[in-house]
Amino acid sequence: MIKLYYAAHTCSLASHIALEDAGAEYSTVRISFAAEQQRQPEYLAINPKGRVPALVTDRGILTETPAMLAFIAQRFPQAKLAPLDDPFLFAQVQAFNSYLCSTLHVAHSHRMRGNRWADDAAAIASMQRKVPDSVTACYQLIEEHMLGKPWVMGETYTIYDPYLFTIAQWLEQDGVDPSRFPKVIDHRRRMSERPQVRKAIAEELG
Amino acid sequence: MIKLYYAAHTCSLASHIALEDAGAEYSTVRISFAAEQQRQPEYLAINPKGRVPALVTDRGILTETPAMLAFIAQRFPQAKLAPLDDPFLFAQVQAFNSYLCSTLHVAHSHRMRGNRWADDAAAIASMQRKVPDSVTACYQLIEEHMLGKPWVMGETYTIYDPYLFTIAQWLEQDGVDPSRFPKVIDHRRRMSERPQVRKAIAEELG
Repeated sequence: MIKLYYAAHTCSLASHIALEDAGAEYSTVRISFAAEQQRQPEYLAINPKGRVPALVTDRGILTETPAMLAFIAQRFPQAKLAPLDDPFLFAQVQAFNSYLCSTLHVAHSHRMRGNRWADDAAAIASMQRKVPDSVTACYQLIEEHMLGKPWVMGETYTIYDPYLFTIAQWLEQDGVDPSRFPKVIDHRRRMSERPQVRKAIAEELG
Repeated sequence: MIKLYYAAHTCSLASHIALEDAGAEYSTVRISFAAEQQRQPEYLAINPKGRVPALVTDRGILTETPAMLAFIAQRFPQAKLAPLDDPFLFAQVQAFNSYLCSTLHVAHSHRMRGNRWADDAAAIASMQRKVPDSVTACYQLIEEHMLGKPWVMGETYTIYDPYLFTIAQWLEQDGVDPSRFPKVIDHRRRMSERPQVRKAIAEELG
C-alpha cells in the first residue's frame, strides 16, 4: 500500500489531496519539522534529501511533488487527474507544476529558509524583505497567463489544482495582497470546499 | 515544425541535446541575454516569464525544462528517451529532473542571479559566498544516491542525461571541487563525446 510521509503546512499537502482525489488506498506518516525528524537517520534512509514529501510505493520511494503528482495520476488512471493520453496537454500540466516548484515555491522559501542560500543574518533578513515582491510577481504571471476556470486546466480538475491550492495557502503570510489576484483566490476558495481537500487538511492539522 | 528558443550557457542546452537525441526536425532561435532580448515584447509574447527555454510546437508553446524534456520523449517515442510505459520509472526520471530544476539549478542561480531574491549588494555577495557549499551538497546527493552507470538510469540513455550534463557544465565556476564527484565528472565526459551533444553545443557557441 502507498504511504505518504508529510509535514503539516508544507507542499506535501498537494500529494495528500491528490491521493484523496484518486481514491487511493494509502496511509500517512507525519514528520515533525519542530523535532527535526526530517534530518534523523530513520527518515534520511527514506529520503536522503531530508525533505518532505516522500511516497513509498510497492516499487520503491518517490520524491518531488511534480513527479509524485504525475505518478498518482498515472497510477490511478480511472480518476482522470491528468490528460495522460495527450503529450502536449500533459506537458502543460508538468510545466505549470514545475513553475510552482522551481520558481514560486523557491521565492516563498526565502522567507523561512534563507539559510539554505546565505549564512549571515543581514542577508537572510534582506531575502525576507524581497519575498512579497518576488512571490507577487509569480502570482501575477499565474493570474494573467496560467489559469482556466473553474480549474487550472479549465473544465477538468487535474493535478494542477491541489498544487496551486497548497502553495496559495501561504500567500498572505508571504506579504502578497490577495485582492490583486481574484482568480487565484477564487480557485483557492473552490478548492477549500472540496471534501477531499477538507479531509486531507483535517488529518494533517488534527 | 518545432522551434527552440535558447540562450547560450543556460539550461536550454538540455532540451537542445534532447531534440538531437530524438532525431527531431527542429529549428532554433538564439536569445541574447547580453542584449536583454528575453525581456523584450517580442519574446515576452512567446514566454511571459522572460526566461529560456521555450519550445514552439504545432499545438502551442511549452516552457520549463523538465516538462519540455518529457514532452520530447513522448512526442518522439521511437527514440526511447524515457521509460514511458512504466509510471514508476517515469516518475523517477521526473523526480530527478525536478530536483535539478528546483534545488541544484536554484542553488547555482544564487551566484549570478541573486537579485531575484534580494536587492542589496551585501546580501547578493553573501549568497554568492554560499554557492560552493550549497551546490556541493546537491552533487553529494546526486553522486551517492542518484547515478547509474553509464547513464543516470543505468544501461539506458534517457532525458535524465542531457539535463545533468547541462548543469554539470557549471560545476567548476560554482566553486565545486570536481575531484569529489568522480561519477558526475565521468558522466559529463561520456556525454561530451556524444555527437548529438557536440552538435548542439557547436551550434549554441558557433
